[in-house]
Amino acid sequence: MKLVFIQTGGTIDKDYPQKTKGWAFEFGEPATTRILEKLNPSFEYEIITAFQKDSLEITDEDRLNLAQLINSRSEQKFIITHGTDTMIETAKCLTEHIKDKLIVITGAMLPERFYNSDAPIQLGAAIAATSLLKTGVFIAMHGIVKSSATIKRNLDTGLYY
Amino acid sequence: MKLVFIQTGGTIDKDYPQKTKGWAFEFGEPATTRILEKLNPSFEYEIITAFQKDSLEITDEDRLNLAQLINSRSEQKFIITHGTDTMIETAKCLTEHIKDKLIVITGAMLPERFYNSDAPIQLGAAIAATSLLKTGVFIAMHGIVKSSATIKRNLDTGLYY
Amino acid sequence: MKLVFIQTGGTIDKDYPQKTKGWAFEFGEPATTRILEKLNPSFEYEIITAFQKDSLEITDEDRLNLAQLINSRSEQKFIITHGTDTMIETAKCLTEHIKDKLIVITGAMLPERFYNSDAPIQLGAAIAATSLLKTGVFIAMHGIVKSSATIKRNLDTGLYY
Amino acid sequence: MKLVFIQTGGTIDKDYPQKTKGWAFEFGEPATTRILEKLNPSFEYEIITAFQKDSLEITDEDRLNLAQLINSRSEQKFIITHGTDTMIETAKCLTEHIKDKLIVITGAMLPERFYNSDAPIQLGAAIAATSLLKTGVFIAMHGIVKSSATIKRNLDTGLYY
Repeated sequence: MKLVFIQTGGTIDKDYPQKTKGWAFEFGEPATTRILEKLNPSFEYEIITAFQKDSLEITDEDRLNLAQLINSRSEQKFIITHGTDTMIETAKCLTEHIKDKLIVITGAMLPERFYNSDAPIQLGAAIAATSLLKTGVFIAMHGIVKSSATIKRNLDTGLYY
Repeated sequence: MKLVFIQTGGTIDKDYPQKTKGWAFEFGEPATTRILEKLNPSFEYEIITAFQKDSLEITDEDRLNLAQLINSRSEQKFIITHGTDTMIETAKCLTEHIKDKLIVITGAMLPERFYNSDAPIQLGAAIAATSLLKTGVFIAMHGIVKSSATIKRNLDTGLYY
Repeated sequence: MKLVFIQTGGTIDKDYPQKTKGWAFEFGEPATTRILEKLNPSFEYEIITAFQKDSLEITDEDRLNLAQLINSRSEQKFIITHGTDTMIETAKCLTEHIKDKLIVITGAMLPERFYNSDAPIQLGAAIAATSLLKTGVFIAMHGIVKSSATIKRNLDTGLYY
Repeated sequence: MKLVFIQTGGTIDKDYPQKTKGWAFEFGEPATTRILEKLNPSFEYEIITAFQKDSLEITDEDRLNLAQLINSRSEQKFIITHGTDTMIETAKCLTEHIKDKLIVITGAMLPERFYNSDAPIQLGAAIAATSLLKTGVFIAMHGIVKSSATIKRNLDTGLYY
């Protein structure tokens, strides 16, 4: 069974392209690629890009396009890497528009490029969730895995619980 | 609910103490401590040490002591960091001797101290498994989570599947 | 003899403060602190902050203030961490206004927070330069150490030579 | 002008080959390769291997062979990565047997594979030394660069000074 990773942007994929006369944090290649190289996983996978956006800039149309992208695929299990600010909104939209597939949304508080990033831990959690679950839309963040209906976020600390 | 992490040694915790006139890779503080600092997790936890051994050196007595340690605790959920060579043996022993608790065994192919280590991903997977499972003994390695009865290892590649 | 490190901002010190509802790359604590912890150096040092700016935003006044700061100190040797775009301008200004002290300017193409950063290598080079030189203003970048009068930059590649 | 890096082993190049049924810290590819990729240096270079040994195991014959190797090359400047315990012995031997070339010896207290390694800083220092010096045999460690005649080591702390 093949696992499909979908990049949508967010902190996890922020990179720092080298430029002269100016600098910028921009979205780079999916961090998922680098993390899976370290894991050497026991499953087949494909990494695709839906879009590259800060999650506050994701629109309803983006979310519908994402649902359509997932529905158009023959695979059963998907991990979406996503900005941390609107994961619940995306999870709710996908719950409405996708049936009989498993989707786990994750992301990171620090870019994967940072040596103190949480990205490998969060992605590891999302992967384990796809190993144990069958269908539904879930968020895997900060060590917990919950459905869009039950997960909450502390807006002061940024922690999902 | 508090999650208990138990160090038993293994590659994940290999460190390189600074010495003059000689060098050594020895077991250091639990890598779990450093990984959880990066995650900033949404759960309470405690990290304890059962022993610090290469997994080929773990004896039947060590495994019984480990089961006893877990049975003596009031908590429900445990993650054991463990050398990769005898995870299945330990999982089978704990399955026999522990009832009504959840135990997830994980480890790493490269020490957590290495920048290219798989340790944060593997531990993230084990943590997610404790978020989704209730009781039983499981191994979380290489992106899959399976019970001691169903998991296998490819001895050529070292991959659990 | 005490070596004084002066933070002025630049890519080397870009960090990613955790926030909800928005994200930002901002200047953080001097990367020098974290690099020197790894080195465990054989010299005494102090780390101070002059200002925290992208080097394209450094003004003539900032440069004069920096010269004044250095002239006001009793120490002989200084390393300035600096954005990579105007190192030569700063070096020329300091050459004019400081006599009988040694100043080595360095920086990085990627923030020290990135695991693939050049920062530790560049700072190591600047430190060695202070071990070998007595007075003057130098730039240590990309593996070469030259005075402000002789160093050049390839504006296509960003490389100093 | 081309800089030649010579691997001789030592902590800097300790790696952890993946194996099942056993583990080992062994010498791997020169860490210099990975460090120079991060630096993107402004000079031409070549990386060669003389031998791969813990520095306590380097013999007088190894040192003579190393001197011969360097004398046989047309290049002028060499950096030797070396175990930290017998750098001074090697520096003295090379001082005796090599004339009119520049040799800078460096190494690390922790393997370059470790995220908290000093290796990139130490190698950066050695590189800067080759940018500033013309001939002689030097050790660049812990932030200082000195000739084999003047450098000392504190055997309690391992620090060169």
